[in-house]
Amino acid sequence: MPRAATTTDSRRSPKWQARREAIIDTSARVFARRGYHATGINELCEENDLGKGALYHYIGSKEELLAAIHDRVMDEVLLGAARVAEAGGSPPVQLANLGEELLDVIHRYPDHVWVFLHEFPALTGERAAKFRARRREYEKSVEDVLRAGVKSGEFRDIDPWITARAWLGMHNYTYLWLKPDGKLSARDVAKPFADIFTHGIVR
Amino acid sequence: MPRAATTTDSRRSPKWQARREAIIDTSARVFARRGYHATGINELCEENDLGKGALYHYIGSKEELLAAIHDRVMDEVLLGAARVAEAGGSPPVQLANLGEELLDVIHRYPDHVWVFLHEFPALTGERAAKFRARRREYEKSVEDVLRAGVKSGEFRDIDPWITARAWLGMHNYTYLWLKPDGKLSARDVAKPFADIFTHGIVR
Repeated sequence: MPRAATTTDSRRSPKWQARREAIIDTSARVFARRGYHATGINELCEENDLGKGALYHYIGSKEELLAAIHDRVMDEVLLGAARVAEAGGSPPVQLANLGEELLDVIHRYPDHVWVFLHEFPALTGERAAKFRARRREYEKSVEDVLRAGVKSGEFRDIDPWITARAWLGMHNYTYLWLKPDGKLSARDVAKPFADIFTHGIVR
Repeated sequence: MPRAATTTDSRRSPKWQARREAIIDTSARVFARRGYHATGINELCEENDLGKGALYHYIGSKEELLAAIHDRVMDEVLLGAARVAEAGGSPPVQLANLGEELLDVIHRYPDHVWVFLHEFPALTGERAAKFRARRREYEKSVEDVLRAGVKSGEFRDIDPWITARAWLGMHNYTYLWLKPDGKLSARDVAKPFADIFTHGIVR
């Protein structure tokens, strides 16, 4: 059986794609609540109101579903980073824009991000390799902005790798309290975070 | 059957306590690798080389074991915060000291911290309430130092709650890459993190 592409598959109908997306979203909620390893296919069938054959028709396997949840997050995060690079601007501006884009994804996809941050070690083989490569690509886009700022003299002589980890931790960790139904928007948080971080590393 | 206290129990022999601590450490490794919900009592018995009766004699229940793993982390983290408060110093110095203490715990207890950060929603009832209260106590100690710095004029007029979340995220998230066998020590990371954060909020 040919494997569906993780997010879209041009050989499939829009209706099939939409149903698959809905299954990914529902399953992200289930995995976030109960854990990936502890959730069985029967439970996924029940939550998605589908028989086993129908579920496999859309998702291929439980691990493919997990990979699709990761891709949903990484697609958005990498798209945000591409928008920031295209918009350009000084390194401090680009860093602030990266933060706003990242917090926007975390704010909109609480379940997917929960699963993403907790269950990535469950991916195996090619899926794990693909995930690591995409995560590395994103991390590099943060490091590159930091490196550019050091080179231009706008940032102090910081270590781009460790500084990127500080930045990533500060932003990623908001998944525990930045929620769609909360009183803070992504922008409410992005602004003070950018203030702290930019002041923290400017020359 | 009386429940054992989470970390020590004066009614028990030192030998019993030591065995219990060893079970907590081994089980933290198992939960970190396979997830709390997906790990059965049989698996815990096997990994700890104990029969079911003997395991229950030391840990009471699977959830009590999870609570004990949380307490191992929280005990150390709160002890560190108490040391920082006792040592005193200016708010920037106290914030740097809090960071060094926190990273030291994360560095020494990778499995416990992994379980702590991922599985806390599995605690129920009184155990969940106790965990939340202790976590809140620690968060408050960070917010208090920030508030003191704003009051003294050493820090800008930042929001202590959101700034504490930035600080906590930056430090907690190191659990993904700060490992006992890694090339970076807790202090190697604490120093640049304190530099970034202090510069980020000083007036």
